[in-house]
Amino acid sequence: MKIQGKEYRTIWYERNIVKIIDQTKLPHQFIIKELKTVKDAINAIKIMEVRGAPLIGGTAAYGIALAAQENTDSEFIKKNAEELIQSRPTAINLKWAVDRMMKRLSGSKSDQILDIALKEAKEICDEDEKFCENIGINGLKIIEEIYNIKKDTVNILTHCNAGWLATINWGTATSPIYHAHKKGIPVHVWVDETRPRNQGANLTSYELNEEEIPNTIIADNTGGILMQRGEVDICIVGTDRTLSNGDVCNKIGTYLKALAAHDNNVPFYVALPSSTIDWEIKKGKDIPIEERNSEELSHVEGMDENNELKKVLIYPAKSKAMNLAFDVTPAKYVTGLITEKGISEASSEGLKKLFK
Amino acid sequence: MKIQGKEYRTIWYERNIVKIIDQTKLPHQFIIKELKTVKDAINAIKIMEVRGAPLIGGTAAYGIALAAQENTDSEFIKKNAEELIQSRPTAINLKWAVDRMMKRLSGSKSDQILDIALKEAKEICDEDEKFCENIGINGLKIIEEIYNIKKDTVNILTHCNAGWLATINWGTATSPIYHAHKKGIPVHVWVDETRPRNQGANLTSYELNEEEIPNTIIADNTGGILMQRGEVDICIVGTDRTLSNGDVCNKIGTYLKALAAHDNNVPFYVALPSSTIDWEIKKGKDIPIEERNSEELSHVEGMDENNELKKVLIYPAKSKAMNLAFDVTPAKYVTGLITEKGISEASSEGLKKLFK
Repeated sequence: MKIQGKEYRTIWYERNIVKIIDQTKLPHQFIIKELKTVKDAINAIKIMEVRGAPLIGGTAAYGIALAAQENTDSEFIKKNAEELIQSRPTAINLKWAVDRMMKRLSGSKSDQILDIALKEAKEICDEDEKFCENIGINGLKIIEEIYNIKKDTVNILTHCNAGWLATINWGTATSPIYHAHKKGIPVHVWVDETRPRNQGANLTSYELNEEEIPNTIIADNTGGILMQRGEVDICIVGTDRTLSNGDVCNKIGTYLKALAAHDNNVPFYVALPSSTIDWEIKKGKDIPIEERNSEELSHVEGMDENNELKKVLIYPAKSKAMNLAFDVTPAKYVTGLITEKGISEASSEGLKKLFK
Repeated sequence: MKIQGKEYRTIWYERNIVKIIDQTKLPHQFIIKELKTVKDAINAIKIMEVRGAPLIGGTAAYGIALAAQENTDSEFIKKNAEELIQSRPTAINLKWAVDRMMKRLSGSKSDQILDIALKEAKEICDEDEKFCENIGINGLKIIEEIYNIKKDTVNILTHCNAGWLATINWGTATSPIYHAHKKGIPVHVWVDETRPRNQGANLTSYELNEEEIPNTIIADNTGGILMQRGEVDICIVGTDRTLSNGDVCNKIGTYLKALAAHDNNVPFYVALPSSTIDWEIKKGKDIPIEERNSEELSHVEGMDENNELKKVLIYPAKSKAMNLAFDVTPAKYVTGLITEKGISEASSEGLKKLFK
């Protein structure tokens, strides 16, 4: 997708160097960062210059290619593969991508290893892009149906960033929106700022701006009254993990929007690649909820009046804060799951029909 | 209530000077400000050094007293009364307090005017304090009932600041909490930070800290999963306006918490003095919703690493934002209204029984 009028993917390989967009600097600065060694790739994942499960997976795959570029010795590559997996231990795609790379390389001759690794890393990224594109094509139909009835701008509410910056291209929740926009359907997006890390404001609004899609940032508190007043036609969000019963684990606050959508008959869709379906855990209550550093709540970073990035404490010095990262939306509040294979009911039956 | 171990009200008169706590500096600095003239009072209301309907009313009343202290000429007082009413035109208590003061002063001899004005201003404040105290006594019963069953810390969730800093003393939503704490019932408060102005974090958590009541600030997104996991025993919030049918207009985001409470069988109470009941407007949809400056969303103020207050831009420079200040919670999601006269069902019948 576009930034400053130019097409990008979130990761690419160019003259022996892997290039990424440094997402810790967005939205205030657009900086392309060069990863020259596997250590650079490990570090980029660790300090969240890249984030979002698919992009972390793609970066890890290219990390293995960088290792092979430095040294084709299998012990060297294996040691770095281990370190890559440890760089963010909870990211499922990370281990999956590294394992796939190592399996592909096993038994290769040393003069072929780099070519094979580069080809496989590109394939992992291309596949993800294709998944996201198909999610967009499937989700586009829903937006189109609303537009055909309403014959006016379709107002879409989204939460957090399930955008192309979290994937290789297109995004998940944003992909139907980009597809609708490209087809000439007028859309406007309500972007939840998504405290505490403000990834809705910082990333989703940013990427929509760059694609020239009209969007308005709102406080996370605001979606309810907008739905009461008929100003939201559809909600589309992403997910970190969907259970086989259709319960959806996503960024904290998603559940509250699903409740409001249900109360006001607004369709509430979740967009996901099938790789994020968890066929093991049976009940939403059994999903472990990550508790992150409370400084993400109590401190905020932004541009001061001299255009310098500053971090400030916004809470009373004595106060305690608690920072839960995810919540679980029960399947009964989810209108449907938009996947790369089609749209499924949020239920065991629906998911089985599509994937088993 | 206490700040730094000392008892305060939010406004008091001492040796010809009205004193207030400058709430624009909280929670980072505790500054007592002196109002020596009616112009000082007008300014304090305008720039929100005082906020909260009851406290604005009390400040306006003392503003009239300050006018009488400067000049007993009835034209002078009348002109300033007009200006006071204009200082924040949407605040209902403001006009009510000024009108009451002017009525009381009308026909008084000039050598008695100051005494009468001071007495009436104090009475307005004392009455508000008594209302809030009674709300606390009535709400205490609900907390006590939960404690008697649970026999463990009662977890209370509140939104925004309906605390003593918004009133003369005790607060509305916080008054039952202060009363429970004083009675030795163990309570813990989940404080919604309440974007965009963060008055939950800045004021509610601050005042609870100073009364040594355990509390934890959470993102506005977090209340839902806490209720799903049984970590909230009761919600108590304030209100800006309650309709005669029981619909509740309060700080944006209240509605989402009421939905989550309803979905998880958590009792959801609204605390209010009967003066904020609107007997005119019949439907929640007819309440005008104030749209405030979007800079309240896009910019945040806090302490930098040098302990200096800094304002920073936290959104992409190109992004638009929309800042709605209130939402409306339908009566069906409100378990009860805690008023100074008792607890009422959130319905026409309930309110009529208590007040008509």
